[in-house]
Amino acid sequence: MAANSGDAINNKAGINPRADTLIQALPYIQRFAGKIMVIKFGGNVMSDDVLTQSFARDVVLLHSVGIYPIVVHGGGPQIKAHLSRLEMETAFVDGHRVTDAQTLEVVRMVLMGQVNREIVGAINLFGEYAIGMSGEDARLLTAKPRNPSLGFVGDVSAVNTKVLRKLVSEGFIPVVASIGADESGQAYNINADLVAGAIAQALSAEKLIVLTDVDGLLADVSNPHSRIPQVSTAKLQDIINSGKVSQGMLPKLEACVIATQGGPGSSDAGGPDTALGAAASAHLINGTQPHALLVEIFTDDGAGTMIVSE
Amino acid sequence: MAANSGDAINNKAGINPRADTLIQALPYIQRFAGKIMVIKFGGNVMSDDVLTQSFARDVVLLHSVGIYPIVVHGGGPQIKAHLSRLEMETAFVDGHRVTDAQTLEVVRMVLMGQVNREIVGAINLFGEYAIGMSGEDARLLTAKPRNPSLGFVGDVSAVNTKVLRKLVSEGFIPVVASIGADESGQAYNINADLVAGAIAQALSAEKLIVLTDVDGLLADVSNPHSRIPQVSTAKLQDIINSGKVSQGMLPKLEACVIATQGGPGSSDAGGPDTALGAAASAHLINGTQPHALLVEIFTDDGAGTMIVSE
Amino acid sequence: MAANSGDAINNKAGINPRADTLIQALPYIQRFAGKIMVIKFGGNVMSDDVLTQSFARDVVLLHSVGIYPIVVHGGGPQIKAHLSRLEMETAFVDGHRVTDAQTLEVVRMVLMGQVNREIVGAINLFGEYAIGMSGEDARLLTAKPRNPSLGFVGDVSAVNTKVLRKLVSEGFIPVVASIGADESGQAYNINADLVAGAIAQALSAEKLIVLTDVDGLLADVSNPHSRIPQVSTAKLQDIINSGKVSQGMLPKLEACVIATQGGPGSSDAGGPDTALGAAASAHLINGTQPHALLVEIFTDDGAGTMIVSE
Amino acid sequence: MAANSGDAINNKAGINPRADTLIQALPYIQRFAGKIMVIKFGGNVMSDDVLTQSFARDVVLLHSVGIYPIVVHGGGPQIKAHLSRLEMETAFVDGHRVTDAQTLEVVRMVLMGQVNREIVGAINLFGEYAIGMSGEDARLLTAKPRNPSLGFVGDVSAVNTKVLRKLVSEGFIPVVASIGADESGQAYNINADLVAGAIAQALSAEKLIVLTDVDGLLADVSNPHSRIPQVSTAKLQDIINSGKVSQGMLPKLEACVIATQGGPGSSDAGGPDTALGAAASAHLINGTQPHALLVEIFTDDGAGTMIVSE
Amino acid sequence: MAANSGDAINNKAGINPRADTLIQALPYIQRFAGKIMVIKFGGNVMSDDVLTQSFARDVVLLHSVGIYPIVVHGGGPQIKAHLSRLEMETAFVDGHRVTDAQTLEVVRMVLMGQVNREIVGAINLFGEYAIGMSGEDARLLTAKPRNPSLGFVGDVSAVNTKVLRKLVSEGFIPVVASIGADESGQAYNINADLVAGAIAQALSAEKLIVLTDVDGLLADVSNPHSRIPQVSTAKLQDIINSGKVSQGMLPKLEACVIATQGGPGSSDAGGPDTALGAAASAHLINGTQPHALLVEIFTDDGAGTMIVSE
Amino acid sequence: MAANSGDAINNKAGINPRADTLIQALPYIQRFAGKIMVIKFGGNVMSDDVLTQSFARDVVLLHSVGIYPIVVHGGGPQIKAHLSRLEMETAFVDGHRVTDAQTLEVVRMVLMGQVNREIVGAINLFGEYAIGMSGEDARLLTAKPRNPSLGFVGDVSAVNTKVLRKLVSEGFIPVVASIGADESGQAYNINADLVAGAIAQALSAEKLIVLTDVDGLLADVSNPHSRIPQVSTAKLQDIINSGKVSQGMLPKLEACVIATQGGPGSSDAGGPDTALGAAASAHLINGTQPHALLVEIFTDDGAGTMIVSE
Repeated sequence: MAANSGDAINNKAGINPRADTLIQALPYIQRFAGKIMVIKFGGNVMSDDVLTQSFARDVVLLHSVGIYPIVVHGGGPQIKAHLSRLEMETAFVDGHRVTDAQTLEVVRMVLMGQVNREIVGAINLFGEYAIGMSGEDARLLTAKPRNPSLGFVGDVSAVNTKVLRKLVSEGFIPVVASIGADESGQAYNINADLVAGAIAQALSAEKLIVLTDVDGLLADVSNPHSRIPQVSTAKLQDIINSGKVSQGMLPKLEACVIATQGGPGSSDAGGPDTALGAAASAHLINGTQPHALLVEIFTDDGAGTMIVSE
Repeated sequence: MAANSGDAINNKAGINPRADTLIQALPYIQRFAGKIMVIKFGGNVMSDDVLTQSFARDVVLLHSVGIYPIVVHGGGPQIKAHLSRLEMETAFVDGHRVTDAQTLEVVRMVLMGQVNREIVGAINLFGEYAIGMSGEDARLLTAKPRNPSLGFVGDVSAVNTKVLRKLVSEGFIPVVASIGADESGQAYNINADLVAGAIAQALSAEKLIVLTDVDGLLADVSNPHSRIPQVSTAKLQDIINSGKVSQGMLPKLEACVIATQGGPGSSDAGGPDTALGAAASAHLINGTQPHALLVEIFTDDGAGTMIVSE
Repeated sequence: MAANSGDAINNKAGINPRADTLIQALPYIQRFAGKIMVIKFGGNVMSDDVLTQSFARDVVLLHSVGIYPIVVHGGGPQIKAHLSRLEMETAFVDGHRVTDAQTLEVVRMVLMGQVNREIVGAINLFGEYAIGMSGEDARLLTAKPRNPSLGFVGDVSAVNTKVLRKLVSEGFIPVVASIGADESGQAYNINADLVAGAIAQALSAEKLIVLTDVDGLLADVSNPHSRIPQVSTAKLQDIINSGKVSQGMLPKLEACVIATQGGPGSSDAGGPDTALGAAASAHLINGTQPHALLVEIFTDDGAGTMIVSE
Repeated sequence: MAANSGDAINNKAGINPRADTLIQALPYIQRFAGKIMVIKFGGNVMSDDVLTQSFARDVVLLHSVGIYPIVVHGGGPQIKAHLSRLEMETAFVDGHRVTDAQTLEVVRMVLMGQVNREIVGAINLFGEYAIGMSGEDARLLTAKPRNPSLGFVGDVSAVNTKVLRKLVSEGFIPVVASIGADESGQAYNINADLVAGAIAQALSAEKLIVLTDVDGLLADVSNPHSRIPQVSTAKLQDIINSGKVSQGMLPKLEACVIATQGGPGSSDAGGPDTALGAAASAHLINGTQPHALLVEIFTDDGAGTMIVSE
Repeated sequence: MAANSGDAINNKAGINPRADTLIQALPYIQRFAGKIMVIKFGGNVMSDDVLTQSFARDVVLLHSVGIYPIVVHGGGPQIKAHLSRLEMETAFVDGHRVTDAQTLEVVRMVLMGQVNREIVGAINLFGEYAIGMSGEDARLLTAKPRNPSLGFVGDVSAVNTKVLRKLVSEGFIPVVASIGADESGQAYNINADLVAGAIAQALSAEKLIVLTDVDGLLADVSNPHSRIPQVSTAKLQDIINSGKVSQGMLPKLEACVIATQGGPGSSDAGGPDTALGAAASAHLINGTQPHALLVEIFTDDGAGTMIVSE
Repeated sequence: MAANSGDAINNKAGINPRADTLIQALPYIQRFAGKIMVIKFGGNVMSDDVLTQSFARDVVLLHSVGIYPIVVHGGGPQIKAHLSRLEMETAFVDGHRVTDAQTLEVVRMVLMGQVNREIVGAINLFGEYAIGMSGEDARLLTAKPRNPSLGFVGDVSAVNTKVLRKLVSEGFIPVVASIGADESGQAYNINADLVAGAIAQALSAEKLIVLTDVDGLLADVSNPHSRIPQVSTAKLQDIINSGKVSQGMLPKLEACVIATQGGPGSSDAGGPDTALGAAASAHLINGTQPHALLVEIFTDDGAGTMIVSE
């Protein structure tokens, strides 16, 4: 969703709706060719095969018109399921799950050996596009511990943007699991929303797009039709600071702040320490609406909430 | 209008119509990037300022997504008007106007100094794209006389494709008036539909698109809703041979045959003598329908009649 | 005409005159390869077929040794003739012809549809070189009105140098008619000498060469043998300011000042508002002397008057 | 190990041993720059941290002198361990483990989420080189079922060499787990030796190098000092056909045949159906000898057994 | 001297002679840009400082307009002088000087250390162009013995054209002394005319130009004004076969045959064994006429005799 | 000899000595690819055919792994021998030989026509690599007189680095004799050590390597085993200033200072006036030890003395 520079001469009266959609979309397509979009995939969408397939197709369509998509994912429910299958119990500190070495090993197996594979597979049904990666590959994500008492839970301290640029310029779609490693090679589990925000920020991506289960930010949480189409980064930070955001929504909003703000986020939010660039915009969209991704990117009205720095 | 290879997995049920248009259009956009489309502009469309502006915008939109449009035009009514203003009378042979030296001079002045300028100007409102040309520029169109008794009425005998390829690859939109010259530099007036067909054929263009005043080819001429969406070149030749085509429509159909058949057309039709390539398809669309050009190119159903070689 | 850096070692005594010409010419040829020369063609030369053919050949010879010629022309006599043929009368304000909408339409038809065609045709007898253009093509010349009371008489306010550089680097010889357009697409008639000067200045051309009917600037107007071989831009401005220059010669001298001075000329002279570069030199030569163009460019003595900034 | 073309002039008498090694190595280094070497890592080496680190360093050294290493691995023992941890029992048919859907899921998790990670991590201690991949990534390995009764046990039917070439030319070291997928995206477990052989063959690699626990092929199995330095592909096939090769050694020898023979292997051996190229040589070396890799590649005497097509 | 394709339209009547020279020269300059010309320098010209300087300048002028000159020289008189200074006597066999090892050493010292230096120095007064070479450098000229009884007198058996192409494309002017070496590195003295012919032939040079002391081939040797402007290779061979050619002129004519004939010359003539290409023409000109080189190359009438294959 | 950055992880205990040499060498090979090394060849080494051949081979091996060697040489003994053969006597001023015009001619003949040829020949036995040059070729070395009373004895005042870079990038090995020329083309004899130092400095070479007859710098001149492995440029200058260095060793040490110091050397030392770059290191090695060149460059311990700026 963005201002269409050609609007002034666009007389919409009586126009074929297909023509109208095309007239809106073509300038966006021109503008976004060769631009990177970081897309956080997750939640309910990921566990629905039809939605996953529809998402994979949209990602390939973006790729087909010259956009460079990078997909980021976590996998909380799948990790939880495998831990329970292994009858492993995990401690909690202040409500956060402690990730010890054995837990981390399971996290890594599930994310890289199961969840990542499924997204890669869904995309590659359309061609030889997706390459699954963890942040350990080619030192993609350097991690630092968040809080010693939480074990191997980390934050992103650096993104190897060169590797991602090489891969997208070779025509690949990187699918990145939210695992990083420190200089000694020790792996860490990182919140996937924050990984997506950090990557979008470090790459100065055109867009960070976070898939959620709601139609973006709502003016009135109880009213699903009260979507706010656009909000500033500063205003979003105010909303975060208000403390009223739900536990699940919080890292998504923080990711949008990290991506668009372009400076190091708060230590809680886990932004990279050496932030230079910034994404041009961040977007919260409803991944359960088929093709919301396309509508948000290529139409004037969009389908979610767009966050821009000012 | 073309087969969308992604259709099989496109579950349209309940899809947002904007999303549906995008899902249809994106593969076409990918497929047509870097391809040449020769567009014959003319008739009623040209004399309507709003339609001309809308046409110019569509051409610029095609250009914006990487398509290389080449516009071809004639200007019968404007020539007639200027001749009458100069009180010049012209002879007729078998119903064809004879073009003597003085008449040719007027033809050239009107086409290059008036009609061409207006199309170039309409496109250049959107940027520094259009370059007006006659077939004399850089020896673009080599002409040969059609019939000695008609004077300087010619047919295309060769197209300098190198020049057009250079210009489109530099980002320009050539706007070509239907004038050619023989080896000695003598200019000829050529039917613009046939010029468009010859250029599309010689360049092995992706498409020849001929703007008319009707919705393509009609199964029943008296029924404007009987549009035939697709027809083969051979079948179109049969229709031409049937002798039932109107005088105005005839060269348009012949141009579609020349473009897609890839061999020399009949001497009447004026195809180049040394035909090697062929356009992938030719299209007859209704230029009076705003944006029929975009709908024809980027949607599965199209807006006119598509002619393909088989 | 320029200083030959190799002179010091050039012992001319007893040298074969052909060898001497070659020894002079080769360093110029080396120096000018890849350089742009803007050549104002016009006046008596243009109406003489033999001189036009000879001029066309010289331009192609320049092109053959790697120089990038750009030809600029107007067409006052031809415009006047067509206006009278159409029995159109034009008003005069302070001795200047007023160009209303109908007059402008005729100007454009004559320049682009007749005069431009003839120069393009003469050059293209030698190959597929020339492309005719008006300042409207690819927004080549942005014009602004000179004086509201004169109607659509304009001055150059900007030159799209990128377009000219693309065309010459592709091997084309642009032949530019002296018409420009403002941002809204409204065309203006511009003095062709000033157009040539503005283009040479904007491109930082190697040379502006203005063809006239005399052997350059004369020390004594009544003595055709009193040619001044070289003069500074400042001195030329003094000559202009003296008020003794004939009406026909005035814009030619102003063009030389504009081209070499590199700053905006006086508003009367119509230099572009945003002048950055400057031509290395300007030259006034006698176009009625066959091949004066070659002699001026490739010999030490030259054939006209060279103007350099200091 | 290969003939050193410079030997004839190499007077070794009394040469400093370091100089002698360098004189031998430099021509190999020149010859192998820009060449692909496929290295099968596995067995006892993989479970020894010191050997793994030493192996990782050797791979990075190869990379540092312009060789393109590609590492291939399986992970039988680790898979077995995790299956038993999950208390999953697997059926056997004719002595082969049946891989049903649940087993396959575990195989994939262990290979991609655990074993692959460790090799990638060991290499990336030296820089941002290694990218872990399964055959599903970018459709690297197309698989076909080996035997319906074995479930998702597959053979390689095609290798996407383009992807591997892109990655190595970008400076990456691909680390490939032995998993493939068929056209529908269904994953298969494949023998890692055969994967390495198929990749080396498809890429026309300079070398396939298979790490084992013995010093190459022994003339007398009971005598570890009876290493055969070089053997032909045909002779190796004879040895395979003799039926005397141990179960563990068999696929290693078959991989060497597939790689160097360049045609489709026997259906048991699982060579790609459309074999065109061939590796220049295959090597069996003892991975438990530190740096055997370097000695084999860069010295005249080598450290294992080299297999060449004739 | 060659047919000027533009002649037909060149009305010479009353043309300024400088203009006429330029009109003739420019097409040659265009045609010869990027072409190699092998120039044999020697005889009386070499021992005259003014002529040498004039020659050097002409070579640099050729270079300045994009021609690639390669200069070849011998040095009989200088060799003779140094041998006598060293009081070395040389044997003769059938009138040919025998070149033993000591003599060869002197030949090499004089050619590379004295004559070559002087030509290089004369050229480099104009810039950093000339690089002196013997046929031993980069294995430029492979030699074979001509006749065992003559010692180290050789013929050219192969030319390393790659080296010469690299050097000229880097902007250098190679100055080649007539020494070659066989595979074992043994040097040989070769006739410089034949070296020039072999190089011109092997490079498919545009021209071989041999400087002599007369105005080319004369119809009547006693009449210096009876110059033959052009002759065929076959006719020249007839003249050689007639046995009337002087001892000094013979190898010059043979060189012209070798260069233009494109096949192996007679063993006496010393053409390379593996002849593939051929020079487009060979020229005999009078090096004592200043700038004959330029007049021959760039004017229609030329200054010597041109030999072409048919 | 340089610090091996990979040492920390290099557990040498029990490693195969060949493997150890390789592990040391590979990082050096990587680091030095594409780097220039200037090698001063001379003294006793040059007069020993076996050592010369061994040296030539080492140079070709360096070239084979992507290093760009440039060889510099003088030829004092050979010059002396030829002068005496010609019975030419030379004057001495303060113990320095005076080089008058006749002497210079002999110097040039011997260096370019004899010594240079032999080194070029030895290298070219291995391929078409070496091109012999004097400083006059392509104005490689600009010289200035050292002391008027010494005649044509010069120092380097400028190095044409562009020429050397072109030649090495084309795959050639320049072999440079120590002769330069001033702007007027007058040649000068220059000390070859100082030429090597000036070239290494001007090119910012990776290394200057000076072959001597001893194992580098000795802490105790009477003890050949007291080699100092590394010393700073400042310390070396102190040693020079101490006045205890032998006449033959002095210019070698000065060359090392010039190369690594990067500023103009003292006027005695003959460094170029306009010094910008500096060699990364200089090395004194014993050329009589076969392959000391390789051992010095590719092993941690080296074989001589390394000089670095700090």
